[in-house]
Amino acid sequence: MLTEHTIEIRVRYCETDAMGFLHHGNFANYYEMGRTELLRAQGGNYREIEESGLFLVVVRLDCRFHSPAKYDDLLALTTRVDRVTPVKIEHAYELRRDGLLLASAKSTLACVDREGRIQRVPESLGTPPRKSSE
Amino acid sequence: MLTEHTIEIRVRYCETDAMGFLHHGNFANYYEMGRTELLRAQGGNYREIEESGLFLVVVRLDCRFHSPAKYDDLLALTTRVDRVTPVKIEHAYELRRDGLLLASAKSTLACVDREGRIQRVPESLGTPPRKSSE
Amino acid sequence: MLTEHTIEIRVRYCETDAMGFLHHGNFANYYEMGRTELLRAQGGNYREIEESGLFLVVVRLDCRFHSPAKYDDLLALTTRVDRVTPVKIEHAYELRRDGLLLASAKSTLACVDREGRIQRVPESLGTPPRKSSE
Amino acid sequence: MLTEHTIEIRVRYCETDAMGFLHHGNFANYYEMGRTELLRAQGGNYREIEESGLFLVVVRLDCRFHSPAKYDDLLALTTRVDRVTPVKIEHAYELRRDGLLLASAKSTLACVDREGRIQRVPESLGTPPRKSSE
Repeated sequence: MLTEHTIEIRVRYCETDAMGFLHHGNFANYYEMGRTELLRAQGGNYREIEESGLFLVVVRLDCRFHSPAKYDDLLALTTRVDRVTPVKIEHAYELRRDGLLLASAKSTLACVDREGRIQRVPESLGTPPRKSSE
Repeated sequence: MLTEHTIEIRVRYCETDAMGFLHHGNFANYYEMGRTELLRAQGGNYREIEESGLFLVVVRLDCRFHSPAKYDDLLALTTRVDRVTPVKIEHAYELRRDGLLLASAKSTLACVDREGRIQRVPESLGTPPRKSSE
Repeated sequence: MLTEHTIEIRVRYCETDAMGFLHHGNFANYYEMGRTELLRAQGGNYREIEESGLFLVVVRLDCRFHSPAKYDDLLALTTRVDRVTPVKIEHAYELRRDGLLLASAKSTLACVDREGRIQRVPESLGTPPRKSSE
Repeated sequence: MLTEHTIEIRVRYCETDAMGFLHHGNFANYYEMGRTELLRAQGGNYREIEESGLFLVVVRLDCRFHSPAKYDDLLALTTRVDRVTPVKIEHAYELRRDGLLLASAKSTLACVDREGRIQRVPESLGTPPRKSSE
């Protein structure tokens, strides 16, 4: 299964701040778009997962900001599945402009039902990548 | 019934844009806060209205922008019920800083159920103000 | 000169609200994207206009909301220059999903310098379309 | 000097998502508000710092999400200065509703000038708290 996917994101004017840069609060939204499109590239669809009664909730998001982006910059976001356990998915993200790394992040998602109870991660969301260290 | 209410809003950094001003896309959110707090001041609660299965949806929002606001400005937003019909509520808004009018707007809300079908506006949301022209 | 342009926009999860729909506050941001891309399609670039010291500020935005959009919907936004005067540009917008009109809007932009003083609209932003009524 | 401050934040409708909860992307904005108000409570003013040509940029933000918040929830955000070095400030955040911890985070800010060059943290932003381990 595909475990890495890159999308292009054009920085919107409304996402900039008075410093003249892409505001740091918007990166979480970009990473969420990265997950949506990685899943679509894998043949899945997050909307259908929600319609089936399962929800992926972010339980941790650790962001590092290396260099600023500006309005109208065309960015490349790479989203990678790092690890899947029965109840969690870990992703890693790299956001670049012309190859220059602007930001990186790691997130942990849990799978819950409509009442917020922990559920097994559905198989369509990926099986753990085999690692020599495991 | 109270038909006008004023709240204070502090401009957040994330709401500014590269021009250095409060981005025009955020005014709709301020007006929504104005409606929430006007309803609370009237003794109502919009969350409870939604929990009862009724939703107020914006069908028109006409905004005029007169003068810019900056990060950390303390603004005064006055929200007024202009007109209530069996199926619509019209509000008017004025956003000021130290008395100076920065923006004004008018909105029309419709009342729908969970399936989006038009419903009567609940009485708790106000009866039409009597006007000589009616 | 090209006076109409259509772009695709995918509704982001962060743009939805508790009602389950694209929140009405985000439409202003979509219309701004429409203007950015219409200008690019015309061979212009709004970032360069700002770098030259001119800014286009929204002085009026009149939005009508006809039907809701949901997370992951793929929308088509058509942006059209309606009228250009020496100091103002008027645009019209139509947002559709599979041909169904979800929202429409009209905006008026003024051209100002860094100090907010009204400036002539630069020629690169279009000359007034000839109308028989003028 | 005061190193901890608590503010109240009312969850806005526009900040919720289709899951019915406060979207995780908004927490960064809340933490930024916490820093603005902690600085004001200390007698400082972040807008004046920027006007003097210094900017505090977020270089890391590590967020943990424990329990969801809903529209209209009244939350208490506690912001604490954890550590100040000559070039960095570390903050810790706890977001609660009626005492229940909903989210916590840590951030690292760097001080830069208009060109993005690292600057010494101004004294008005706090001297390092004395710790026995130092």
